[in-house]
Amino acid sequence: MQIIDGKATAAQIKAEIKVEVEEMVARGQRPPHLAAILVGHDGGSETYVKNKVLACEACGFRSTLLRFEDDITEDDLLSQVAMLNADPEVDGFIVQLPLPRHINEQRIIEAIDYRKDVDGFHPINVGRMAIGLPCYISATPKGILELLRRYDIETSGRRCVILGRSNIVGKPMAQLMMQKQYGDSTVIVCHSHSRTLVKECRQADILIAAIGQPAFVRADMVKPGAVVIDVGTTRVPDATRKSGYRLSGDVDYEHVAPLCSYITPVPGGVGPMTICMLMQNTLAAARKTYYSL
Amino acid sequence: MQIIDGKATAAQIKAEIKVEVEEMVARGQRPPHLAAILVGHDGGSETYVKNKVLACEACGFRSTLLRFEDDITEDDLLSQVAMLNADPEVDGFIVQLPLPRHINEQRIIEAIDYRKDVDGFHPINVGRMAIGLPCYISATPKGILELLRRYDIETSGRRCVILGRSNIVGKPMAQLMMQKQYGDSTVIVCHSHSRTLVKECRQADILIAAIGQPAFVRADMVKPGAVVIDVGTTRVPDATRKSGYRLSGDVDYEHVAPLCSYITPVPGGVGPMTICMLMQNTLAAARKTYYSL
Repeated sequence: MQIIDGKATAAQIKAEIKVEVEEMVARGQRPPHLAAILVGHDGGSETYVKNKVLACEACGFRSTLLRFEDDITEDDLLSQVAMLNADPEVDGFIVQLPLPRHINEQRIIEAIDYRKDVDGFHPINVGRMAIGLPCYISATPKGILELLRRYDIETSGRRCVILGRSNIVGKPMAQLMMQKQYGDSTVIVCHSHSRTLVKECRQADILIAAIGQPAFVRADMVKPGAVVIDVGTTRVPDATRKSGYRLSGDVDYEHVAPLCSYITPVPGGVGPMTICMLMQNTLAAARKTYYSL
Repeated sequence: MQIIDGKATAAQIKAEIKVEVEEMVARGQRPPHLAAILVGHDGGSETYVKNKVLACEACGFRSTLLRFEDDITEDDLLSQVAMLNADPEVDGFIVQLPLPRHINEQRIIEAIDYRKDVDGFHPINVGRMAIGLPCYISATPKGILELLRRYDIETSGRRCVILGRSNIVGKPMAQLMMQKQYGDSTVIVCHSHSRTLVKECRQADILIAAIGQPAFVRADMVKPGAVVIDVGTTRVPDATRKSGYRLSGDVDYEHVAPLCSYITPVPGGVGPMTICMLMQNTLAAARKTYYSL
């Protein structure tokens, strides 16, 4: 059994990006510039955005954080998005989700210029990904593809079972894993209404769990030798931790890990890759890899 | 075993649309208007476009056919698209594919205003469909959903195996069948590289074949009681026909049909639904159901 070390892989990728940025700067170009909009003071969002800013520093990017209070109006937020769209010094930007309830998230996402949409949430990027065109692929599925690739895990023609059908993980993961240029797998998508979920899991060569239910995948649901990718990151109360909680994956790691050929731990698996893929997308934005502006 | 009669269903839907159009006209609105661009003289394309014009007549729509020779330049074609985009009298339009080789099809598709893209091929419509937002859904997958719905076939939680991963059938079908608001099925996508394809088929409650290989699905690949949807329409030489060919589905109908609970024939199954769904999309365009212009 080999543990897929997302933390080390992410560090390596950031080091690779840093070298590329240094080369850009040496050629007289400005470094990539990522902007982030953060509304309110949600603890999780604060942490994510802070980590994104730190990752920018690690990669040699410029970063800008725009903070607004919870009571910002939708129109004001749209104006901020329009300003970032128009700013030639900003290569890509994100609006940290979730947003306060009085703001229509989808409307904000669709207001972002898709050519700067490094989160890959704009329908144009979602659609282009679905039909296999170059585009920003959202960070979590992109990070999983990168882990599979860097660990040289064969996916072509194998059974890849995906648990969960969310817009940010399950669905795009399914679309990528079925495409010839990415996973080329037989793809099976299971969700809360699937009658044969346990049976599908037992026949998975690659099992990607993204349902947000701690320890949902038990040892008796995993085929010996399977590759298990755990996307779950649920905060579970834990009095022994300073923070008062620990992160739990969707997989019963203790009992499942011994059965696997490869497995991602939580934390330290898929999580660290996510921000790192945002950095890759920002580098691609600065280079105009997918779109010219 | 019940044969799913696509021809009768399509006729019924067109009759329903006609009634709605008559009501629109009685209220003083103009009838829906579909335009089609046809480049060159490909036999298949001529037939499809002719049938679309006839379907418009059957529904009480206005239709406009713009014909161009094979040597039209990409820029000239883009100008025609821009004119249709700007024409307030045109609710929706299609550019019949395939286009001559010197024209970049994707560039043409992306030039169409997504709000008039009744084929549902623009990345914005593809992306919105993927994340479950209101949009034009392309005709073949939409027609299959409609047949399943009108025949009251249960899909929720059942195993739906899709053979093929094309951008116009396999992939969108998978995305729709996994969504709670449409199929809500466990979705399995198989393709040429799938090692367990036969086994997956044998366990399918619903089998959707869209690979373009005549009689690929044999009786020993189908579970008794399964629902079989045959999207294949390959022209097979047949000297006994006046046309010199007959249409063959992906399913060995003669031997598979007796096993099924429901099956679509070829021709007369999915095919007739396709144009009829284009009519539904055009009606939706005229009503601004998904987008305001």
